[in-house]
Amino acid sequence: MKSSHIPRATIQRLAVYVQVLENLIQNNENVISSEGLARACGVNPSQIRKDLAYFGEFGVRGVGYYVQDLLTAIKQSLGIDRTWNVALVGVGNLGRALLRHQIFRKRGFILVGAFDCDPFKIGEEVAGLEVVCSRRLKERAKDLDIEIGMITTPPERAQRAANYLVEAGIKGIVNFAPSRIKVPEGVAVEYVDFIHHLFSVAFNISLNQSKGLA
Amino acid sequence: MKSSHIPRATIQRLAVYVQVLENLIQNNENVISSEGLARACGVNPSQIRKDLAYFGEFGVRGVGYYVQDLLTAIKQSLGIDRTWNVALVGVGNLGRALLRHQIFRKRGFILVGAFDCDPFKIGEEVAGLEVVCSRRLKERAKDLDIEIGMITTPPERAQRAANYLVEAGIKGIVNFAPSRIKVPEGVAVEYVDFIHHLFSVAFNISLNQSKGLA
Repeated sequence: MKSSHIPRATIQRLAVYVQVLENLIQNNENVISSEGLARACGVNPSQIRKDLAYFGEFGVRGVGYYVQDLLTAIKQSLGIDRTWNVALVGVGNLGRALLRHQIFRKRGFILVGAFDCDPFKIGEEVAGLEVVCSRRLKERAKDLDIEIGMITTPPERAQRAANYLVEAGIKGIVNFAPSRIKVPEGVAVEYVDFIHHLFSVAFNISLNQSKGLA
Repeated sequence: MKSSHIPRATIQRLAVYVQVLENLIQNNENVISSEGLARACGVNPSQIRKDLAYFGEFGVRGVGYYVQDLLTAIKQSLGIDRTWNVALVGVGNLGRALLRHQIFRKRGFILVGAFDCDPFKIGEEVAGLEVVCSRRLKERAKDLDIEIGMITTPPERAQRAANYLVEAGIKGIVNFAPSRIKVPEGVAVEYVDFIHHLFSVAFNISLNQSKGLA
C-alpha cells in the first residue's frame, strides 16, 4: 500500500469509485469487470486499472473485481473505513441545507455540532442540533470529538470561522464560502466552489457553440 | 487567444483568479504583482504567469497586472463576460438554499426557473420563483431562455432530471446529486460532489497523523 503517494486527482476518482461500488452493493452486484466499472464511473478502463494498482492486486483475470473487497480496500486507504465527527460553522440557508442533507451521515461524516455567531440563531434547533455560539467551538470540539469543520458562512466571515476551527484543534476544513482562507501547516483545506463548476460549464457551452457542436 | 486549448485544471484556477480579482476591484486595488496575485490565490507565481500567458501579454514589467484588464480578458475567454440563465431542478433543502444563494447572480448566473415533480411543491414560491412541474421544462426553457441546468434532486432522480434538461435543449448541466448522469455528446456536465472533498480532507488528516504532523 502506497497511500501516501496517491495524487489528488486519483483521490477524486477514488471517491467516484466508492460512490459507484456502494450503488453496486445496494443492487446486490458482487463482481464487476474493469470495463463495466469504467463505464459506470465515466473514466477509461486503463485509468481504473492504474488507479486501483495502488491497492495491490484486486482484479481477477477473466472475472473482474470483487466489489466488496475493492470498496473495503479503497475506504481503508482513504481513511473512510470509520466515521468522522463534523462541525458546521455558519447556519444560513446553505448551512441549514447541509445540516439536513442525508449524504453526510450515509458516507460516514456525522454532523455533531452547528455553530453561528448570530445571537438570533444561537439556541435554535436545526436538524436535531442546537446552534451554539462560534466562540464556544474550542470547548465543544473536545466534548464532541470533532475532527472536521465545514464553513458555510458568508465569504467575509470565512477566515474568522477558520480561526475558530484551528483554535479548536481541528485538522481538516471543507470551505463552502467563496473566499480563500489561511490556516497553519498540518491543517487540510478543501474548497467547494459552486461557481467554478458553473464557469466550467459556461466555458464548455461557449466552446461547443464555437465548434458548431451545440 | 487559444481558449479552446485551456486545460480543465487551468479553468479551475482561472475561476479562483476571477474571485480574487473581483475582490481587488471592490477594494479599489487597480494593479497587482504576480507574486501578490499568486499569494492571494494560493498558487505559485510561475503557475500564474503560465496560466495567464493564454490571454496574451498582460503583465507589465516592474508593475504587475492591471486588475480590470486581466479580469475582463479572463472573463471573455471563459464565456462569463455575459449573464447566463439557469434552471434548477429539485426544490428540496439544497435546491432551496441554492435558489436563495446570492453568489450565482453576483457571478452572472441568473436563476430564472425552479422545477420539481412533487405536486406538493408545484406552485410554491421560493426566492421569488414559482415552482413549476419538471415536465414543463421544455416549454418553459424557451420562454425563459434557459441555457444551464442545475440538478439538486435525490440521486435516484438525477438521470430523469437530466433527461428533462436535455429534451429542453439545455447544453450545460451542473449536477449536485451524488450520482453519475448520462447525456448526449455536446452537453457539458459538471459534478459538485461534497463528499469528494470530505473524503479528501479525511484522507489528508489520516496522512498528516501518520506523518506525525497533526
